[in-house]
Amino acid sequence: MLLTGGSGFIGSRTIAPLRAAGFEIHALGRTSGGSPDVVWHELDLLDDRASARVVAEVGAEHLLHLAWYTEHGRFWSAPENLDWVAASARLLRAFAGAGGRRAVIAGTCAEYDWADAAERCRERADDARPQTPLRPATLYGACKHATHLIAETYAREAGLSLAWGRVFLLYGPGEDERRLVPQVARPLLAGEQAPTSDGAQLRDFMHVDDVAAGFVALLASAVEGSVNIASGEAVSIADVLALIADAAGHPELLRLGALQRRDGEPERLVADVARLRNEVGFRPSIALEQGIAATVAALGR
Amino acid sequence: MLLTGGSGFIGSRTIAPLRAAGFEIHALGRTSGGSPDVVWHELDLLDDRASARVVAEVGAEHLLHLAWYTEHGRFWSAPENLDWVAASARLLRAFAGAGGRRAVIAGTCAEYDWADAAERCRERADDARPQTPLRPATLYGACKHATHLIAETYAREAGLSLAWGRVFLLYGPGEDERRLVPQVARPLLAGEQAPTSDGAQLRDFMHVDDVAAGFVALLASAVEGSVNIASGEAVSIADVLALIADAAGHPELLRLGALQRRDGEPERLVADVARLRNEVGFRPSIALEQGIAATVAALGR
Repeated sequence: MLLTGGSGFIGSRTIAPLRAAGFEIHALGRTSGGSPDVVWHELDLLDDRASARVVAEVGAEHLLHLAWYTEHGRFWSAPENLDWVAASARLLRAFAGAGGRRAVIAGTCAEYDWADAAERCRERADDARPQTPLRPATLYGACKHATHLIAETYAREAGLSLAWGRVFLLYGPGEDERRLVPQVARPLLAGEQAPTSDGAQLRDFMHVDDVAAGFVALLASAVEGSVNIASGEAVSIADVLALIADAAGHPELLRLGALQRRDGEPERLVADVARLRNEVGFRPSIALEQGIAATVAALGR
Repeated sequence: MLLTGGSGFIGSRTIAPLRAAGFEIHALGRTSGGSPDVVWHELDLLDDRASARVVAEVGAEHLLHLAWYTEHGRFWSAPENLDWVAASARLLRAFAGAGGRRAVIAGTCAEYDWADAAERCRERADDARPQTPLRPATLYGACKHATHLIAETYAREAGLSLAWGRVFLLYGPGEDERRLVPQVARPLLAGEQAPTSDGAQLRDFMHVDDVAAGFVALLASAVEGSVNIASGEAVSIADVLALIADAAGHPELLRLGALQRRDGEPERLVADVARLRNEVGFRPSIALEQGIAATVAALGR
């Protein structure tokens, strides 16, 4: 199988479950993750010709495409998003041309209209409730959604089986220092105050190992279309902050409400996970309390 | 200004109105159209680096991007559509990076949900009527729509003024021999029967010179968002066939109803042109009867 983003936050965690599922892994990307269980092809995925050449050489039946521009803070509106639409379209074309049969690509909760996500973000209508509209507010969301539209229509034409995994909030050891857990845990671990927003917003958190395992389960399944890869649990950010503070040993230094919320933050952003549970048959295995504790512990090491 | 597709069916007709509007034209593409009023930059637009280099050198304020894969019959589902999403995204990025201010890109009526286009295809909701849903049924439509989504969101981020011109049916001298007018006129001009479908379908036809002039008017305006570039006239295909047969001098050889309609053909595909008329201030100038007559006459030469 072909893996992109294999040295990234999610991708590096897919290697163990991919191997466990019996896949021989060919990873494409600029930086080799170093795992000996993987054949690494070092190349810039934005160099379409170089990646088409390797894709043709490998001739894999499966593709898990996780690579994208993810520079923290910048990725929401960076023009690099356009490059990744382009690279993804060409990668998928090269993959189908080389005999590929099944592709899974990483999407995002930012494809949904957050203003309309009052209850849960739903990939499809069911008997009682409509699909959550796909109306991204950001360039990142728009570029992911555009890639989805292209990929889904192209897969139909090319006879490719395609699933689109929409990631919600994730966390875990090794995450960017500017993400929620390190941002709050670092000062607490140093015995300093940690100012935060009020934290009443409800979110869907999933440990990165579960996100990675969810992608692999989706790849190994025959499920097609969009599938939320999320926990389905609505947790308040305040509850997550309390877990971080407990794990850091300084609940008394948390300053809930000291910061304003960022513009455009929705009250609620939680996935419907019926497809992931019932069709893919996947459930996350890391409880939030344990996951946060391990993530904070890794910061202290 | 930068022009892509300048040697194509629409693009070659934009050169005179672009010059009349005072633009200095730099055309990018594989084949030079030969017009001396244009600086031709011969390159493959799918070669992103080559086009980025020329875009940076020219440093134009305006872009009219018409190039796409248009091989008759094949374009609806050809994988080349993916390449053109990629090339368009990168072209737009290069244009904005080189100081571009205003871009107009060619879209298509195939972005609309034809099943929902019962009345007229409307770019936006107005007081009384909703927007026609954008739910393309073909890879071509999906790739154009994806490009639109990317371009519109990116333009907002990059401070670029962007309009998206949706083309409906067009015709004119020099069109592909497999299109409606040559297909029907050729046998008639040779004194042979021309079998056609029943022709009751309503369509929106516009002469290619008017389509080109409409794009130039849109480029020169400050109108942003999607704009149908069409006549707004609902004409039955049977009426068009009658005009072709009259122009070919053999109305008695037309065999209406001898062929089945193609699958998926909508009953009605007609544009609402309020934006083009009222905001851009453009009206087509070539009546269908004269336009068809000239197109058939050109075939006989």
